[in-house]
Amino acid sequence: MGTTQLETAPEPKYWHLKTVLSEALDSEFSVGEILPNERDLAARFGVARATLRQALEQLELEGRLQRRRGVGTTVAPPRMGVAVGTEEHTWPGAAGDAWQPADCTVAAPPAAVADLLESVHGEQVHTVRRSRVSRGQPVAAELVYVPASSVPALPAIDTPSGAARARAVLRELRHLELEGQDRAVELGSASAEDAKELDRLPGAPVLVVTTRFFAAGRTAAVSVATYRADTCRLTFGDHDGVEIHHGPERRAS
Amino acid sequence: MGTTQLETAPEPKYWHLKTVLSEALDSEFSVGEILPNERDLAARFGVARATLRQALEQLELEGRLQRRRGVGTTVAPPRMGVAVGTEEHTWPGAAGDAWQPADCTVAAPPAAVADLLESVHGEQVHTVRRSRVSRGQPVAAELVYVPASSVPALPAIDTPSGAARARAVLRELRHLELEGQDRAVELGSASAEDAKELDRLPGAPVLVVTTRFFAAGRTAAVSVATYRADTCRLTFGDHDGVEIHHGPERRAS
Repeated sequence: MGTTQLETAPEPKYWHLKTVLSEALDSEFSVGEILPNERDLAARFGVARATLRQALEQLELEGRLQRRRGVGTTVAPPRMGVAVGTEEHTWPGAAGDAWQPADCTVAAPPAAVADLLESVHGEQVHTVRRSRVSRGQPVAAELVYVPASSVPALPAIDTPSGAARARAVLRELRHLELEGQDRAVELGSASAEDAKELDRLPGAPVLVVTTRFFAAGRTAAVSVATYRADTCRLTFGDHDGVEIHHGPERRAS
Repeated sequence: MGTTQLETAPEPKYWHLKTVLSEALDSEFSVGEILPNERDLAARFGVARATLRQALEQLELEGRLQRRRGVGTTVAPPRMGVAVGTEEHTWPGAAGDAWQPADCTVAAPPAAVADLLESVHGEQVHTVRRSRVSRGQPVAAELVYVPASSVPALPAIDTPSGAARARAVLRELRHLELEGQDRAVELGSASAEDAKELDRLPGAPVLVVTTRFFAAGRTAAVSVATYRADTCRLTFGDHDGVEIHHGPERRAS
C-alpha cells in the first residue's frame, strides 16, 4: 500500500519478501515461465525456505503464481474478467448465456439450497449441471436447482437425463415471468467433482456465486456456480465489456 | 453434491472426513464452541492427523470453523450477508453509506490503481481510508483513490489528514455527476495493515472488491475494499435486505 502512513505498520518478513518477489516477477519473468526451485530462490533472497514458501503461497492466493503438479511454479497470466452480474435479469439458458448444459438429474439438493427454495429437506428437484469456458479454459461449474413446481408442464421423461434434458428444464423455466434475482459471492473450496471439471486439486479455493431467481412471489430456482479463484476476477455492473486490470501488468512471453 | 451421478466421483479421504465433520458440527456442536484437540479428533474419526488437518483447513475456507491464536478452533457463526452492489449508483460517502472514514493522505497509488485511473505511475492522489463494521465486527477495510483533477475545488489544506480531510475529499467528489460504476471481485490475501484492522493474521484470504466510478467520461475514483472472507458473504442485487443462508443452519449456543 503506497502511503507513507501505512508503511509504518510492521510487516512480517515473508510479506516484505512477497513484495520483492512480486517486483522481480514484473521485471525479470514472463507469463508462463517456470520459477527457479525453492532452494535457489531462498538462497538468492537470503531467506529461510519456510519464509519463501509463505511468500509463494501469498502470491498464489493473489493469482500471481500457479503451482501445477509435474510442472512446478509458473508465472500466472493476469486473471480473466468474467462477467457475473448484469443490470438486466435473465433466466439461466436465455440468449447470450455463457454456460453449456452438460447434464440433468433428479436429486435432493443440499440442505442450504433446500432452505433457499423453501422446500422440504430431502425433496427431490431437477438438478441441471452446466459448465462455463472462457478463452478455452474451464472457469466455472454450476448446478441449477429447479423444483418440479417451477416447471409444471415439463414433458414426460423421454430423455430422463443428459444435455437435452437440461435444455428442456431450462426452456420450461423460462415460461415463468422472472421478477428479480439476487446474488451472493463467498469463498469456498472445490469439491472433487468441481475440481476435476475446473482442472484444479480438490480443496482449491473457489469463489461460490449463489443466485436466487424469483417468480410468482417465491424462489423459483437457485444456481450455485463455482468459479476458479486463481484465474478469475468476477465482474459486476454496467461495463461488463470493459476489462478491469488488477495487479501490475506483466510482460507477455 | 446430492446427485447419484456425482457421488460416483472418487473423493479424497479428507474430503469424506470433511463431510462427516460438517455433519458432526451441525448435530453436536454450538456456535462458538471450542473443538477437541487434533489428537482426540483424529482418534475419534480414525484418521491420521495430516488428514484431519486438511479437513479442518477446508472447513475453515468454507467459513464453518475459525482458528484463533490462544483460543483454538471454534465453530463459526453463519457468514454475514454484506451488501456490496445496489441497483442505484452512488458515490462513496453518500447518505446511507456503511463506511466510516478514518484518514486521508496524499500518496502514489499502486501501479494497478494508477492504470485504472489512467494516471501516470508515481503521480500522487488523495487516498481515503475507510472501515466497515457490521454487527459490531470489522468486516472490511477500504482505500478510495481520488485524483486531484476529480476534486478541483478542494479547499486548501487546513486539515491535511485525518477523518475530517477524508470527508472533505468525498464531499467534493460528490459534486461530480456520477455516470456509472462497475465492480470486480477476486481472491486476495490480507496485508499486514488490513489484517490488523480486520482482526486477522497477515496473509489470511480476503475478498477484494475493486470499484470504478465514472464521471465526465473517465474514471474519477477507484475504491479497493478488502472484506474478511471467513465471516462475509458479499450480496449483490435488488434484494439487499434479504438474508441468503448458505451452509446448513447451525444451532445457536
